[in-house]
Amino acid sequence: MSEPAKTLEGWFCLHDFRTINWAEWRKLDSEEREQIMGEFLNLLENWNETQTKFEGSHALYSIVGQKADFMIMLLRPTMDELNELENAFNKTRFAEYTIPAYSYVSVVELSNYLPADKDPNEDPEIQARLKPILPKWQYVCFYPMDKRRDGNDNWYMLPMEERRTLMRSHGMIGRQYAGKVRQIISGSVGFDDWEWGVTLFAHDVLQFKKLVYEMRFDEVSARYGEFGSFFVGTLLEEDKVKSFLHI
Amino acid sequence: MSEPAKTLEGWFCLHDFRTINWAEWRKLDSEEREQIMGEFLNLLENWNETQTKFEGSHALYSIVGQKADFMIMLLRPTMDELNELENAFNKTRFAEYTIPAYSYVSVVELSNYLPADKDPNEDPEIQARLKPILPKWQYVCFYPMDKRRDGNDNWYMLPMEERRTLMRSHGMIGRQYAGKVRQIISGSVGFDDWEWGVTLFAHDVLQFKKLVYEMRFDEVSARYGEFGSFFVGTLLEEDKVKSFLHI
Amino acid sequence: MSEPAKTLEGWFCLHDFRTINWAEWRKLDSEEREQIMGEFLNLLENWNETQTKFEGSHALYSIVGQKADFMIMLLRPTMDELNELENAFNKTRFAEYTIPAYSYVSVVELSNYLPADKDPNEDPEIQARLKPILPKWQYVCFYPMDKRRDGNDNWYMLPMEERRTLMRSHGMIGRQYAGKVRQIISGSVGFDDWEWGVTLFAHDVLQFKKLVYEMRFDEVSARYGEFGSFFVGTLLEEDKVKSFLHI
Amino acid sequence: MSEPAKTLEGWFCLHDFRTINWAEWRKLDSEEREQIMGEFLNLLENWNETQTKFEGSHALYSIVGQKADFMIMLLRPTMDELNELENAFNKTRFAEYTIPAYSYVSVVELSNYLPADKDPNEDPEIQARLKPILPKWQYVCFYPMDKRRDGNDNWYMLPMEERRTLMRSHGMIGRQYAGKVRQIISGSVGFDDWEWGVTLFAHDVLQFKKLVYEMRFDEVSARYGEFGSFFVGTLLEEDKVKSFLHI
Amino acid sequence: MSEPAKTLEGWFCLHDFRTINWAEWRKLDSEEREQIMGEFLNLLENWNETQTKFEGSHALYSIVGQKADFMIMLLRPTMDELNELENAFNKTRFAEYTIPAYSYVSVVELSNYLPADKDPNEDPEIQARLKPILPKWQYVCFYPMDKRRDGNDNWYMLPMEERRTLMRSHGMIGRQYAGKVRQIISGSVGFDDWEWGVTLFAHDVLQFKKLVYEMRFDEVSARYGEFGSFFVGTLLEEDKVKSFLHI
Repeated sequence: MSEPAKTLEGWFCLHDFRTINWAEWRKLDSEEREQIMGEFLNLLENWNETQTKFEGSHALYSIVGQKADFMIMLLRPTMDELNELENAFNKTRFAEYTIPAYSYVSVVELSNYLPADKDPNEDPEIQARLKPILPKWQYVCFYPMDKRRDGNDNWYMLPMEERRTLMRSHGMIGRQYAGKVRQIISGSVGFDDWEWGVTLFAHDVLQFKKLVYEMRFDEVSARYGEFGSFFVGTLLEEDKVKSFLHI
Repeated sequence: MSEPAKTLEGWFCLHDFRTINWAEWRKLDSEEREQIMGEFLNLLENWNETQTKFEGSHALYSIVGQKADFMIMLLRPTMDELNELENAFNKTRFAEYTIPAYSYVSVVELSNYLPADKDPNEDPEIQARLKPILPKWQYVCFYPMDKRRDGNDNWYMLPMEERRTLMRSHGMIGRQYAGKVRQIISGSVGFDDWEWGVTLFAHDVLQFKKLVYEMRFDEVSARYGEFGSFFVGTLLEEDKVKSFLHI
Repeated sequence: MSEPAKTLEGWFCLHDFRTINWAEWRKLDSEEREQIMGEFLNLLENWNETQTKFEGSHALYSIVGQKADFMIMLLRPTMDELNELENAFNKTRFAEYTIPAYSYVSVVELSNYLPADKDPNEDPEIQARLKPILPKWQYVCFYPMDKRRDGNDNWYMLPMEERRTLMRSHGMIGRQYAGKVRQIISGSVGFDDWEWGVTLFAHDVLQFKKLVYEMRFDEVSARYGEFGSFFVGTLLEEDKVKSFLHI
Repeated sequence: MSEPAKTLEGWFCLHDFRTINWAEWRKLDSEEREQIMGEFLNLLENWNETQTKFEGSHALYSIVGQKADFMIMLLRPTMDELNELENAFNKTRFAEYTIPAYSYVSVVELSNYLPADKDPNEDPEIQARLKPILPKWQYVCFYPMDKRRDGNDNWYMLPMEERRTLMRSHGMIGRQYAGKVRQIISGSVGFDDWEWGVTLFAHDVLQFKKLVYEMRFDEVSARYGEFGSFFVGTLLEEDKVKSFLHI
Repeated sequence: MSEPAKTLEGWFCLHDFRTINWAEWRKLDSEEREQIMGEFLNLLENWNETQTKFEGSHALYSIVGQKADFMIMLLRPTMDELNELENAFNKTRFAEYTIPAYSYVSVVELSNYLPADKDPNEDPEIQARLKPILPKWQYVCFYPMDKRRDGNDNWYMLPMEERRTLMRSHGMIGRQYAGKVRQIISGSVGFDDWEWGVTLFAHDVLQFKKLVYEMRFDEVSARYGEFGSFFVGTLLEEDKVKSFLHI
C-alpha cells in the first residue's frame, strides 16, 4: 500500500447551482417580486455579517450557458451549518422560483506533498488558506476532478515520492498564475462523487483557459486527471441582484 | 474458476433518498402541514417500536447538497417487510410532497475472508453485526461500490488466497477507525446495480474523508474499487423533524 | 470468424416496469379507484385465460426500491401480440396513473452450447422451456447483460470450443440451484439494448444473491459479463392487487 | 493516414420516435380526436403522393416497449425537406399529444469497399438503393453504430486493404439473409451522434436476432462494432392508425 | 512535461440550443404570438447592429431532429456580454416558449502549431479569423471534442514536435475543403465540458459528412479524437422566422 498524502482541512464548502424558472417568476406581480428579492437580499446580508466576523464566507456568481443561471458558494466551519443554510435557502420564496441544477459538497483542503516545518494551527497564512474569505473577482470557474485509477495510469498505486515529485511540478504551473488566478482546492472524498472540487477566481476570464490548458500537458493531469463538468460565471454583486432578476 | 468468499447475511436494507417539493409543501395551510407531519411522526413511532423489539432498525438523516433532502435507512428481517414499508410510506400524504431521488436495496453482509471458528448463529457479536441497531451518530455517509473486472485489474479472477490477503490489509485500515467510524456493509449482488452498499456513521464528519481517502491508496480500492455516488448527511432526530419541515 | 452458438427461440417476452403516480391516484374518489382496479383485474383475468390455454404467460411483481413500483412480465407467441397487449395496457385508465420506468423486449432462448441429439420441436421438455408458464414463486430478479468485447476480453473472438467449455462450467453453477432458483434466459440481440435478459424466480430471495455472486467468480461472468440494472421484487397476487393499490 | 472508403450518398433520412401522451389524448372528446387523426392521416396521404412520385419515402411503425410508441421514418432528397417536414409535424395538433423519444439524422449511403466498375449515377440498381422506397414489411429494427477506436481495436487505423477484406466477409453474412431481411445503411458522420444508422425490415422478426447475432461473431462487429439503442416495431398501416389511437 | 501549443483567443462564443414548446405556443392567440415574435425580431435587429459595427456576430439556424428546434450562436468580445445577452434572451417572452436543450461556452481560438512570423495583433487576416462575422451559409454543423488521454493514446503526453506534425497533416485535409466548408474552432478548456467546439458552415450539407469522415481516418482523430453530440441545421433567416413560428 502506497502512503496517502497528509491533508489539512478547513471550512466546509457547498457549491449550489440553480436555474431560474423565468416563466413562473414573470407571473408574479412586481410587488411580490420586490418582496421576494428583499428576502433574498436579507439572506445575503446575514451571510455578509457572518463573513465580517470571519465565521464563514460566500460568493454569488451568474453562470454562463444553460447549465445554471447562478451559483452560490458557501463556506462554513461545520457541515451542519452548510446543511442548515441550504435548507433555509430552500425554504425562501425565492428558492421556489429556482430549479436545482448541480451541487457539490466538499471541505477546503491543503495537501502537504511539500515538506512543512511549521505548526499549521499556528501559521496565519495556512489558516487563511484553510478558512478563506472568497475574493470578489470578476470571474469564477468550478470543476470537480478525480485522480485516475486505470490500468497503468493509476495514481493511487504510485509511490509517495513519485506523487510528490509530480505534484511539485504541477504546483509550479499554478504558482506562475499567482495574482492572476486564485485557486481553492476542496476535498470531497467521502462527501461527493468526485475526489476534489477546484474553484478558480480571476480578473481575466482567459486565465482560466490558459491555466487549465497548460496544466493538461503536465503529467499529473495528462495521465492522471479525470475532469467533471466545467462551470464559468461572472460576479453577481448584491447591488446587481435586482437588475439580474428584473423582468 | 476462483472460489467465492463465504458470506453471512442478516437484515435486509433499503436506503430511500427523497427530495422535498418545497413549493407544493408551502401551498398547504399550516394545519394541513401539521397533520401530515403528525402522520409521518406516527410512522417513525411505529418503526421505533419495531426497533425496541429488535425486529428491525431505521435511521433518518438530512442530506447535504441537491442530491436529496433526506434519507430513510430501513433494516428488516425480510425483503417483503421492506417492500411493504416502502409502499406504506409511498401512500402517506407526506410522501406526496417528496420526490424520489435515489434508493438502494441490499442485505447486511459479513464476508468471512478471515478464518472463523465459531458458529455464527450462536455468536452474539456476529448476530449483532448482522442485525444492527443503527447508531444515532451525527453524520452518515453512503455509497455503493463494485469490485473491478477490467483487463489486468479483475478482482474476480484473483485466487482466493490473494483476495484474502488483500482484504486483510484493507480491514486493518478500517479497524484503525474503530470508535470513530461505524461501518455497515450490505451486499446487493442480484438486488441492485452495484455489488455492495457502504454506510458509515461518525461523530466527526471529517473521519469519512480520512477513512475513504486512506483506503483509496490500499490496493483493494486503488486497483479494484469502483465507486458510485456519495451521499453525506446529518442526523435528523424526531424532535427536529417539525423544525426541519417548518416553512 | 468464430462460429455462433445455435439458439432456439420460444415465446416473445416483454418486461414492463412502472411507477405509480400516488399523488394523482389519491385524488380520485374511492369509487373511481375501484372501477379502475376492476378494469385492471379484468385484464389480468383475460391474461389468465390465455395462460390456461398455454397461449402465453404472465407475472406481476411488486418491485423494491424507487426504480419501479411493479413489473408486468408478458410472454406471447408473437411480437405482434406483445405490442398489442402493451398498447392495450397503455389505454387502460390504470396506466394513466403509472409512469413508465423501464422495459425490456426479448424472446425466450435456449442456447445449445451443449450437444443435443433430439429434435427440439418434438421434445416436450425443450418446448416447455421455450414456452414457459411463469411460476408463482415469491421473488423475482431481472437484469439484462452483454458478453464483453473489450481488448483481450472479447467473448465473440473466442473459438466456439472455448466458449462451449466456459459455458458448460457456467451452467454447472446454475444447476446447483435447481429447485431453488428458476431461470429464464431471453435473447434480445436486435430487439433491445443488451444481448440477453435474465429473469430469476426464487422462494428465498437470498438465493438470487448467492447464485449471481457465485457466478461472478466464474470466468464467463468474471471476464466476459457486463451487467445492466438489477430489479428485485415480491409476488403480487391478484387478490393482493386491491390492497397494494389501496390508499 | 489510412485511406477512407469512398461512399455514395442518396436520400436524407430522419427517424423520429415518439411516445403518445395517452392521459392527455384521453381528455379530448372523441370528435376532437377524430379531427386530429384526420389531420395526421392527411399528412400521411401527402407523404404517399410524394412517394408515388419517387420524390421520397416514409414508413410508420408501432414500437415495442417503453422506448417509444411509434416511429416515423422519412426519406427526402434534401436535408431542408426533412427539416420542413419535421417542423410541419411538430405544428400538427397530433404532435401535441406525442412526446419526443429519440431521433436520428442521416443520409442513405453505399460504401464501395467492393470494387465497382459502373457509373453509379447511371446504374438503376444503385440508384434504387440510394433512393429506396421503404418496403411495407411487418417488422422494423433500428440501431445506430460506430466503428471502434480503442487501443488495439481501432478501425480507423487499419489499412484500407484490411478493412476491405473484413467488410467483404461481413457483407457475406448479410447476403445470406437476402429476401429475409432488407437493410438500409445510412451515414451520420457530421449529422448525428453515431457514425451510421442501420434500419432492417423483415417478415419474420426473429431474422433480426439471427442476423445481428451472427454478425456479432464476425470480426468487424466483434472487435470493431459499438452499438447504440435497439428499437423494434411492427408495421402500422394507415388503415390501422385509427384503431391504434382509439381509446 | 510536454510543451503546450500557443493559442490566440478572439471573441467569446455561446451556442444556445432550444426546443420550442409548441403546445404552449399554440395556446396563445395569434396577436400575442405576433407581439412575441416582434420582440424577438427586435432582439435580432439589435444584434445585427452590433454585427454591422463589427462588435460581435451571431447566427440563427433551425436544427434537424429532436435534439433542438433552433440554435442561436453568439460571438462577443467579452464573456460578460455573452452572459448579459443570454440573460436578456431568457427574460424575453419568447424564451418562455422555449426549453433549453444544450449550450456551449467557448472562445474563438487559433492554435499556432504552424510557425508564425507575423504579429497577430497587426495581421488583419488573423484578426478576421479571431473575430469572425459568421457567414450566412445554408447549413451548420456543431460538435464538441476532446483530445484523448487513454493508455497509449494520450495526446497530452506526446512531444510538441509530434503533435505539430500530426496537426499539420490534419490541417491539410481541412484546407482541401476551402470554399466548401468554413470552420470555426473555439476553445473551451476551463469554460465547458469538452476542450473544443467545432462549428462548420457549408452550402452543401454533405460536405460536413465528407470532411468529418475523411478526418476520422487521420491519426489525430482516429487515435486522439473524442467527440460529443453532433447537431446539424439549416439557416433560419430573419424573414423566415415568422413562418418558422407560424402555427
